[in-house]
Amino acid sequence: MIKVILTILCLLSATTTLGSDRPNIILMIGDGMGPAYTTAYRYFQNSSGTSKFDRTIFDATLVGTASTYPDDIDGAVTDSAAAATAIASGVKTYNGAIGVDKDKNPLKTLLDLAKENGYRTAIVATSSITHATPASVVAHVDSRLKNFEIANQYVDEQFAGKPKVDLLMGGGRKYFRRDDRNLLDEFKAAGYSIADNMQERQSLTSLPAIALVNENSLPFALDSQDVTRLATMTQKALTLLGEGPFFLLVEASQIDWCGHANDIVCAMAEMHDFARTIEQTVHFVDSRPNTLMVVTADHSTGGLSLGANQKDRWSPDVIRKVSASSMKIVQRQVEKGESWESEWGSITGISLAQKERDRFQIIFLQLDDLNSSTVGDKQEGFRISFEQLMECTELAAVPGGACSLLLALHALSIEAINDRSYTGWTTRGHTAIDVQVFSYGKNAQQFQGSMDNTDIAKKLSRVILSPSDLSSSGEL
Amino acid sequence: MIKVILTILCLLSATTTLGSDRPNIILMIGDGMGPAYTTAYRYFQNSSGTSKFDRTIFDATLVGTASTYPDDIDGAVTDSAAAATAIASGVKTYNGAIGVDKDKNPLKTLLDLAKENGYRTAIVATSSITHATPASVVAHVDSRLKNFEIANQYVDEQFAGKPKVDLLMGGGRKYFRRDDRNLLDEFKAAGYSIADNMQERQSLTSLPAIALVNENSLPFALDSQDVTRLATMTQKALTLLGEGPFFLLVEASQIDWCGHANDIVCAMAEMHDFARTIEQTVHFVDSRPNTLMVVTADHSTGGLSLGANQKDRWSPDVIRKVSASSMKIVQRQVEKGESWESEWGSITGISLAQKERDRFQIIFLQLDDLNSSTVGDKQEGFRISFEQLMECTELAAVPGGACSLLLALHALSIEAINDRSYTGWTTRGHTAIDVQVFSYGKNAQQFQGSMDNTDIAKKLSRVILSPSDLSSSGEL
Repeated sequence: MIKVILTILCLLSATTTLGSDRPNIILMIGDGMGPAYTTAYRYFQNSSGTSKFDRTIFDATLVGTASTYPDDIDGAVTDSAAAATAIASGVKTYNGAIGVDKDKNPLKTLLDLAKENGYRTAIVATSSITHATPASVVAHVDSRLKNFEIANQYVDEQFAGKPKVDLLMGGGRKYFRRDDRNLLDEFKAAGYSIADNMQERQSLTSLPAIALVNENSLPFALDSQDVTRLATMTQKALTLLGEGPFFLLVEASQIDWCGHANDIVCAMAEMHDFARTIEQTVHFVDSRPNTLMVVTADHSTGGLSLGANQKDRWSPDVIRKVSASSMKIVQRQVEKGESWESEWGSITGISLAQKERDRFQIIFLQLDDLNSSTVGDKQEGFRISFEQLMECTELAAVPGGACSLLLALHALSIEAINDRSYTGWTTRGHTAIDVQVFSYGKNAQQFQGSMDNTDIAKKLSRVILSPSDLSSSGEL
Repeated sequence: MIKVILTILCLLSATTTLGSDRPNIILMIGDGMGPAYTTAYRYFQNSSGTSKFDRTIFDATLVGTASTYPDDIDGAVTDSAAAATAIASGVKTYNGAIGVDKDKNPLKTLLDLAKENGYRTAIVATSSITHATPASVVAHVDSRLKNFEIANQYVDEQFAGKPKVDLLMGGGRKYFRRDDRNLLDEFKAAGYSIADNMQERQSLTSLPAIALVNENSLPFALDSQDVTRLATMTQKALTLLGEGPFFLLVEASQIDWCGHANDIVCAMAEMHDFARTIEQTVHFVDSRPNTLMVVTADHSTGGLSLGANQKDRWSPDVIRKVSASSMKIVQRQVEKGESWESEWGSITGISLAQKERDRFQIIFLQLDDLNSSTVGDKQEGFRISFEQLMECTELAAVPGGACSLLLALHALSIEAINDRSYTGWTTRGHTAIDVQVFSYGKNAQQFQGSMDNTDIAKKLSRVILSPSDLSSSGEL
């Protein structure tokens, strides 16, 4: 249906002028950012000690909410792929689908529509740029797991003989510079500037350009030198995009991953980066009023709740003192070996109870045993990364193996912090709660109230196609 | 500050005409109804089997959200008393406070302001009418636990020589007809019609009137003959209130109690009653356009999450088949004794796994033992009510006693249902997540966006005082 509508609208638009009077569109997705995350961030970022809390950028721009269910199964909770496809194309699909409908047919996306209407296009993410959300506005692949195929389509999916995206910025270089195909060379041949690290990225002066500054995803904000790296990248993207019209997709990818890890400290740092990104975007909109910003989430992650264990309290002061993600805490504790407890204390500011100390100690003793009997096993622990920990989770770790011990350490860390801050979680997966919609700038009022995530695509397509006559009309 | 503002506005209003051109105000509070409850209700009430979900009345009227934190402690999560006082007076206070500020000074409420401006006033609730939310718009008491004192103030707090509320409808007769004081007789002497049961309530023809149809609270919707008893009461109240202007407070009191019990089935039935109540109120507003409806919650309860145990799924089909609250299930199982399992099956439609069956069986055997050794103990079980179960919770039940066994049965029941429906909870208490704001009718647009719960009082006070010039102005 939306395909038909989009086609009709495209035909209509062919008679209108392409280009500069169309509004810029900045679509921002906080992956996993359910409503508990924005409430939590308000209280987390307020350290004035008074009972009067500062309003956040989320408070200042909230306009509505969106339902997120996927197409495939009654009762299913969406994943990022189905949700991003819905937001990008206006069509419900199955979990795992990247830009295809439930029958695996390719869907026209907002980025396609923008490109056809003379827009410059850009994608910024803190994950690999092939991850589900950024991928869904460009690629058409039946499974989100096919990272190589997705990367190929960034080159192969073209408009007027050129790749459809004028700027890609984020992580995931390993999917582009491969033995079988070097996509970065292909981009270069097509006239793109290529940046391989942060310094090169900041030196870019013109489009088209590709800046994949990490082999994998970027580190967590909490574990990064630049704790607002998404804001930094987005600022650079806005500068490069120059005069409009442009379509920019920004994803705060890792809120979701902190949620999967049930790590509230990690989540708050990602929220802080995203809040700064939105704040600077609002300033941009103030300076360029012919711009519409829409912010939403694909789903909520973890069943986050600000209250746990029968106590009517949530204590962000505990969270503010912790200086590393739970994965990094495990890594640093293992590196310290026998002095793990002082390392724990210096990172978290938390004194362990005897019972907790004993539980940690038992695991470290087991890790020592394992290290004595298996050469290199402890070294693996030294190099533990988020991806490895996630692999441990997915691989149903063998009891007593390094993976299960590291996961046990991780569980103890987050439990100690969650218990003290009264932070609750119900799952390591996603939940069905409606997400929020925030909007600012031209036509922002079109996003007021409750909607479905497919409505976001429909409303944005109308803004792209007929910017001048929206104020008095309803949605598609 | 708000007291000063309200005083100034009252003085100003003394020069304006009292009465009929002022808009009717219907303020409705879903106690404990956080955002997960309205999402859950959308999927629960849809049994079409298709992937296209019907929009609910919550979807149709959503306009914004409200923060709920109380005044007293940084990090504290509000209770119903502090939140209702904030919504009713515009002032933050401590948990437990009924219509008083943090220094225990009485606060002027919206109901006071309405009364002073020629409004009829009414309160409808499914709890005892002395419960925190209804109490906070009328009474000024330093603790919500003082039910007798609160009941007294319904008579003693007067305006122009008469009680301030023209209609009270709900439960809690035991607090009004007492040995030390018979408040219902006092109301009668002041000209009030008195209804003691549902039949008498429906026969009421004029105000002032008091209809307290239960000694305690009303039964859960799920366990009631009239499953939409709040809608029935509200309809009657609207009829009795007649021509405006009137101020009506409606509380869906028991969503919160289902949340405290972590009972999703119970919660969905209360949500259904509340949805019907809002739907008919929207119809009322359509027929009487000089009416403003505002719906919100005081806080969310239980950390409800639509997804649990690592599964990206929430299954309302499981919930739809269960026909009694978890408290009623326990009561009926205990009554059935040896045939508890067939009773369980007929109420829930759930076949127990062997492990679950064994856990139930062990408790029934212990209950049998207890009954053999203690005369009357099992009979207590027969009469188990929500209030008793809550008392069991609060009294930290003695291990092996009837209370602990009944609580264990209750825990098994909700666990079996929550596990199969993938419903998650993080606490038996409240949480800090922002609640939603729904509005419809005259000046509804004033409630768009993110606000604090005190802003609701401020906005409503302006609607009462200057209904004609709000469209172009901001909040207080």
